[in-house]
Amino acid sequence: MPAKKLSDTEIAALLPKAKGWSVAHGKLHREFACKDFVTAFGNMTRVALVAEAMNHHPEWFNVWNKVVIDLNTHSVKGISDYDFVLAEKINEIFDPLPPLRLPGSATGQ
Amino acid sequence: MPAKKLSDTEIAALLPKAKGWSVAHGKLHREFACKDFVTAFGNMTRVALVAEAMNHHPEWFNVWNKVVIDLNTHSVKGISDYDFVLAEKINEIFDPLPPLRLPGSATGQ
Amino acid sequence: MPAKKLSDTEIAALLPKAKGWSVAHGKLHREFACKDFVTAFGNMTRVALVAEAMNHHPEWFNVWNKVVIDLNTHSVKGISDYDFVLAEKINEIFDPLPPLRLPGSATGQ
Amino acid sequence: MPAKKLSDTEIAALLPKAKGWSVAHGKLHREFACKDFVTAFGNMTRVALVAEAMNHHPEWFNVWNKVVIDLNTHSVKGISDYDFVLAEKINEIFDPLPPLRLPGSATGQ
Repeated sequence: MPAKKLSDTEIAALLPKAKGWSVAHGKLHREFACKDFVTAFGNMTRVALVAEAMNHHPEWFNVWNKVVIDLNTHSVKGISDYDFVLAEKINEIFDPLPPLRLPGSATGQ
Repeated sequence: MPAKKLSDTEIAALLPKAKGWSVAHGKLHREFACKDFVTAFGNMTRVALVAEAMNHHPEWFNVWNKVVIDLNTHSVKGISDYDFVLAEKINEIFDPLPPLRLPGSATGQ
Repeated sequence: MPAKKLSDTEIAALLPKAKGWSVAHGKLHREFACKDFVTAFGNMTRVALVAEAMNHHPEWFNVWNKVVIDLNTHSVKGISDYDFVLAEKINEIFDPLPPLRLPGSATGQ
Repeated sequence: MPAKKLSDTEIAALLPKAKGWSVAHGKLHREFACKDFVTAFGNMTRVALVAEAMNHHPEWFNVWNKVVIDLNTHSVKGISDYDFVLAEKINEIFDPLPPLRLPGSATGQ
């Protein structure tokens, strides 16, 4: 399925669900600070695997524990539904869900 | 500092602190099942970075979400202190500490 | 397109084109020795990207510069066309250039 | 051994040996175009392993097959001997073979 260009209205409607992402220079943008380089590059490898499987790749910058990601879609000259899908997958990688800790349980997951 | 070969007594004393590891065929051994291949290989990449920096590499097997790791030290023909250090670092990668969730807090990390 | 189980006759016909691969324990099998761990793991990362994009993953073992790969297809309980496609892509990653053969030289690189 | 800040004269003397690198904005700078994302990210993984082992990390940007690398050393607020060592290792990863130069040909590959 080809990427579908999103209008400004559509982007504004989707953005609140894409935790941590904003629009900068016509691209979805988010910056992450990890614990160290090992964690940053391990997460980048997971994003790389997801991106290659989608055939939709990020523009990204890294130094040490910092990863800066920009997403847009060349074929539509703008932001597409693919960018929001990839942004969501990137969030799952960098912000894993905290284990559920029930009241009264001694340990986490 | 060269690796120091550990005696069976020393290994038995250290093993309880190396959560999930046992001795099999003269090597420290642990098996992990991750959520999927992306998570498994992302974790392997982090282990690879740590191992290369220590110049102490695992024997490991992967298929899909499963990672099986064996650690020993060729130079001492056995299990050394390096293997326990690497085992501990591998545990930190595969079993991250759960975020602290205080009673009454609405959200995790 | 679902994977197609190959008969022994089909496998025997395809095997000569899959340089370096043999059949062992019902799987396509090849072993690689790289220059060092960095090269081995870099190649494994490239294979991981290709495998995730195919949704067809290897069984593999690594220690230091050595990578041992076995390919088969669970869904068909045997070797499929997917395994030969992945074997060919793995060869392109690990054997990037044909050996240089200068006029009059008896052997390649 | 701590990194040693290089003077402009020392940098000018070393630069001709660092094939493809120039100085831009006070950093060693080189851009690579690989065959595809898989090759680019595989090479980045190899650089990551080398960098983590040196405890000296690049600033780098990637999109698809393109990798842009800047090297400098925070602790000396400039370019150090470490940057030239890492630049040389990066060249070995991205430019594995010397260009083929046949007798009578004006240029390499």
